[in-house]
Amino acid sequence: MIYDVIIVGAGPAGVSAALYATSRGLNTLIIEQCENAGGTLKKVSNITHYTGFKTGESGENFSKMLDYQILKCGANFVNDTVVSTDLTEEIKTVMCKNGSYGAKAVIIAAGTTQNTPEVKVDDIVYRKHFHNHASKDGKSYDNIIVIGGSDGAAKEALYLSKIANHVDLVVIEDDLVAVPEFSNPIKQSKDITLHVHSVVSEVKGDSNIESVIIRDIKTDKETIISKENMGLFYYMGSKPNSEIFEGIDTENGYIITDNNMKTNISGVYAIGDIIVKQIRQISTSVSDGAIAAIEVKKYLSE
Amino acid sequence: MIYDVIIVGAGPAGVSAALYATSRGLNTLIIEQCENAGGTLKKVSNITHYTGFKTGESGENFSKMLDYQILKCGANFVNDTVVSTDLTEEIKTVMCKNGSYGAKAVIIAAGTTQNTPEVKVDDIVYRKHFHNHASKDGKSYDNIIVIGGSDGAAKEALYLSKIANHVDLVVIEDDLVAVPEFSNPIKQSKDITLHVHSVVSEVKGDSNIESVIIRDIKTDKETIISKENMGLFYYMGSKPNSEIFEGIDTENGYIITDNNMKTNISGVYAIGDIIVKQIRQISTSVSDGAIAAIEVKKYLSE
Repeated sequence: MIYDVIIVGAGPAGVSAALYATSRGLNTLIIEQCENAGGTLKKVSNITHYTGFKTGESGENFSKMLDYQILKCGANFVNDTVVSTDLTEEIKTVMCKNGSYGAKAVIIAAGTTQNTPEVKVDDIVYRKHFHNHASKDGKSYDNIIVIGGSDGAAKEALYLSKIANHVDLVVIEDDLVAVPEFSNPIKQSKDITLHVHSVVSEVKGDSNIESVIIRDIKTDKETIISKENMGLFYYMGSKPNSEIFEGIDTENGYIITDNNMKTNISGVYAIGDIIVKQIRQISTSVSDGAIAAIEVKKYLSE
Repeated sequence: MIYDVIIVGAGPAGVSAALYATSRGLNTLIIEQCENAGGTLKKVSNITHYTGFKTGESGENFSKMLDYQILKCGANFVNDTVVSTDLTEEIKTVMCKNGSYGAKAVIIAAGTTQNTPEVKVDDIVYRKHFHNHASKDGKSYDNIIVIGGSDGAAKEALYLSKIANHVDLVVIEDDLVAVPEFSNPIKQSKDITLHVHSVVSEVKGDSNIESVIIRDIKTDKETIISKENMGLFYYMGSKPNSEIFEGIDTENGYIITDNNMKTNISGVYAIGDIIVKQIRQISTSVSDGAIAAIEVKKYLSE
């Protein structure tokens, strides 16, 4: 079975591409490494700036909507992990752990993978207490350490400050780089301590976190946080998942496209967070997806 | 009161801009000629290809969500009609029927106005029986005439074929230009008659439509439709509402922008259906809105 188009990744970009591809009569396969759609948004506590989706609803509910839309539009969905690709031929092949798939065109919407903190820590502590999925974690905490200074980290720090007695927000920069919507309430909050130009230098404990050392990288001053129930959350940027797409032109790992989402390889398009772009938001991703699918339809009609 | 930014129009583009502008701490005013947000989408029977919004939900519900999001984000909303603008000064002025407003930046998201059919018809018949808002009209029809061959017309023809005994779809082109998702079921439907290379040449009646004449423009053959309860819906493209924005560079009435949504006037941005672009969809509009608001923040910080 040769599909008209394979979409790699079912985040907002990939799902948008699927909606447009199927509406144009294209036999469409989505390959997604997770069981559900949503991409990194599945882990976001609440969606804030996306027109048409209720402000403050969870990333999990957003993902459920995407699952519903994939089902409804009639795209084929395979839960598998891409291991390699052969994109230069007229029929492109996507090799996965559990099978190989062929298509006349490919849309790469494989997104990014979050960076993890480089902290010496016991493996069990790491697996039990290091997270980047705030809303999933229903536990009550005495103290939560959040690492990261961008919009994502700031939003989750605010969210976590409602479920923990106290949050320590550790930012390597000289200030929060988050938008005022998040940075203003953080600076005004009595429940959040902001540690600028600082890193988490050590985490002690065996099965539980016993203490966390926050080091000021300008003064070398160390602050030791030690409470009963502690957790550590990190939102430290991400890296594009572009390595598996051989022959694709990239810049710092991000895929280079033109305004029509075309890559350097004929019949191969890239969209969403994985591409070189100014603004990585749901809104720009769904726009990419619509454009790419309409371009694929044109390409296949030629 | 001088606002940081005035957004003209509360369709998806304008609302997206408002969400991003307010999140960045900008004092934001939206001016909208209708009481509610949503733009032309308010009249769409169902939303089909927008990621994150339930496929098939009404345009009216989409608009309600937009109203909610405007309220929630803290943007100021004024229901007024823009009559003229003075955009070249550092402080831009937007003159409306009921007041004038000033801002350091302006985002034009004023969309388009639907074209109306040029058919000789009694004025009362026109007002009572000519529509472009399918879902609002709860009446039962024996026959509905739909004029237009694009995605919008085709989607509404399908919707209307469920509430009328029969639909006649009148397309001036040689074929439907709608996507397969809509054109295939129309061609298979027993309840829809497709009239290609045809126009509605005459509508007779005084308070009710008595008959509609459909003329084949290739053969000049006329088909007369005469039923008990008839309605006429039109979806015949639209024109950009750009005339009120003096000094703005346009192409066929559509505003010219760069990739960052900047117009030829410093501090003035344009987004959504009103600009020169390839693809006019909700997804591309909300992307425009996000980009423009982030650019306005940069502009005001310089």
